[in-house]
Amino acid sequence: MDQKISTIQDVARAAGVSTATVSRTLSNPGVVAESTREAVMEAIRSTGYRVNHTARNLRRQRSGSVIALMPNLANPFFAQIIAAMSSVLTPAQYGLLIADTQAGPDAEARLSHYLLSGLADGLVLFDGSLTPSRLDIPGRPPIIAACEWMDGALPSVRVDNACGARLAVRHLAEAGHRRIGHVTGPPRNVLSVSRLQGFREELAAQGLEPRPDWIYEGDFTMDSGAMVARKWLASTDRPSALFLSSDEMAIGFMGAVQHAGLRVPEDVSVVGFDNIEVVGHLTPALTTIRQPRTLIGERAAELLLGMIEESRTDGPSEVIPVELIPRASVAPPRE
Amino acid sequence: MDQKISTIQDVARAAGVSTATVSRTLSNPGVVAESTREAVMEAIRSTGYRVNHTARNLRRQRSGSVIALMPNLANPFFAQIIAAMSSVLTPAQYGLLIADTQAGPDAEARLSHYLLSGLADGLVLFDGSLTPSRLDIPGRPPIIAACEWMDGALPSVRVDNACGARLAVRHLAEAGHRRIGHVTGPPRNVLSVSRLQGFREELAAQGLEPRPDWIYEGDFTMDSGAMVARKWLASTDRPSALFLSSDEMAIGFMGAVQHAGLRVPEDVSVVGFDNIEVVGHLTPALTTIRQPRTLIGERAAELLLGMIEESRTDGPSEVIPVELIPRASVAPPRE
Repeated sequence: MDQKISTIQDVARAAGVSTATVSRTLSNPGVVAESTREAVMEAIRSTGYRVNHTARNLRRQRSGSVIALMPNLANPFFAQIIAAMSSVLTPAQYGLLIADTQAGPDAEARLSHYLLSGLADGLVLFDGSLTPSRLDIPGRPPIIAACEWMDGALPSVRVDNACGARLAVRHLAEAGHRRIGHVTGPPRNVLSVSRLQGFREELAAQGLEPRPDWIYEGDFTMDSGAMVARKWLASTDRPSALFLSSDEMAIGFMGAVQHAGLRVPEDVSVVGFDNIEVVGHLTPALTTIRQPRTLIGERAAELLLGMIEESRTDGPSEVIPVELIPRASVAPPRE
Repeated sequence: MDQKISTIQDVARAAGVSTATVSRTLSNPGVVAESTREAVMEAIRSTGYRVNHTARNLRRQRSGSVIALMPNLANPFFAQIIAAMSSVLTPAQYGLLIADTQAGPDAEARLSHYLLSGLADGLVLFDGSLTPSRLDIPGRPPIIAACEWMDGALPSVRVDNACGARLAVRHLAEAGHRRIGHVTGPPRNVLSVSRLQGFREELAAQGLEPRPDWIYEGDFTMDSGAMVARKWLASTDRPSALFLSSDEMAIGFMGAVQHAGLRVPEDVSVVGFDNIEVVGHLTPALTTIRQPRTLIGERAAELLLGMIEESRTDGPSEVIPVELIPRASVAPPRE
């Protein structure tokens, strides 16, 4: 079925408004009256008009998209950050492309591809395991690191991870614990490194010796937390309290300990990291370090848009404060 | 700093390969040898070459993107589906744009905008609350509904929601429950409607009378599950078992019941819907209906790519089977 290609003039005529009003309705519907918007949308439907975004973006040398590179989309921690970024990017007329860096093979090659391809006007990097030197490409689009970045070379939005770890350990020490263990994330990950460093610093500040056999390696997932619990259950000389580097690991750890018939916090105290929504509904509710995810997502998108608008690859960084959320998973140690 | 614009010929010369090999390396890196890929990527870096995707997409009249419209990105149920869609779309050279339909104002107007704007070559619709008549636009891109859709007008990938609800109720009845309640999702949502229908059908099949005051309205969130628990706790003539239309609501319900000092399943049996990862780690682990999320995401992406390649808006539909996952949140009722 043949169909005449409609123009913006056809739409304006059908809606009884100017072409400028049609443009404004399409680019920023919030600023036009409800009745105008309805008339324009109805005219667009009746005329079959389609905006050619590709042509428009080509004119302004923009792809109109921002890519967020995330290490694990299945982690609910990222879902809320994505929603917050969308809430900033959508009104600014940018689409958000999400790519899961760990979902396919060769994350580093794909990073180079995104940087070189012109697919996006800017990148938000959440994956702290990618090699910073791969970003050293002339003419690449602006990047904001939304995680702690080893060499500080990129503008970033980050939370103070070492500080969060110190708050967690201090809380356990103040409850009377002297035998405090830690479950790390993946060892190369910058978040793991910072939180482990904070853990060590606060142990020292509390006059406690670190015990290498009480530092367990996890990978941020629930399953790895459950695996650590099985090691902990099998050991006789074990810590009375654990700080885990993610809430997901704390969920897996608590579940496995409870399913084995022991109790939290009576038999072991637990502190997580992130404050994902579910942890307040657990029994016991999990004590954790809150990362304000909505704020992280919003500020990452806002700082990146600033760099894109000004065509710069440098820009300001921000540190978002963390706080301890005390709940029911910490109690004094048994004597 | 001025910089000469590099061409694909410059890259081919620097890498010592043909321009066809450079193209192939960029469009489908999996088919070229590792050493070739490295040489080409190094040449791209040294020459500063950037592919102009926008121009390429304009030539083939494609945006190169697929948009997934989701009702709530903060729900971990969607994260795994997104990851599965990416795993199909990325090798096919499509970016995935995610839009949270409930994050901004006027979801219906934005849906029309996405359909009319040419921003994407195809849409995956997860939001069952959008009005199907809004999709009736000539020349729109193909859409696949990845949820149950009221009028069946769209190609879809869906799970058999009514069947899942019947499995849940049957499991409770077989444990001896005669006082079975239900917590719905948002009342207009097609998933809510199908699951409520399955709940009623299986009650009838078991010879049980539905009690209107035992059908509670939720909205799929943990908070709404906790709110229902407070009503349930305050009532004296209450159901001994509940089938909740999402795991998130079941988590909120169990948490609030347990925090009030009652026990699951001793005081109330609970069945959820979805089988999100966390529910196996809860205490008690939650009995639920499994939706195979990876399969849903993969099939949605594959069916949509088929429609895009063939430039059709019609296409096949698929029903993905569900199953009951029995865990520890169901026990016989107290006498």
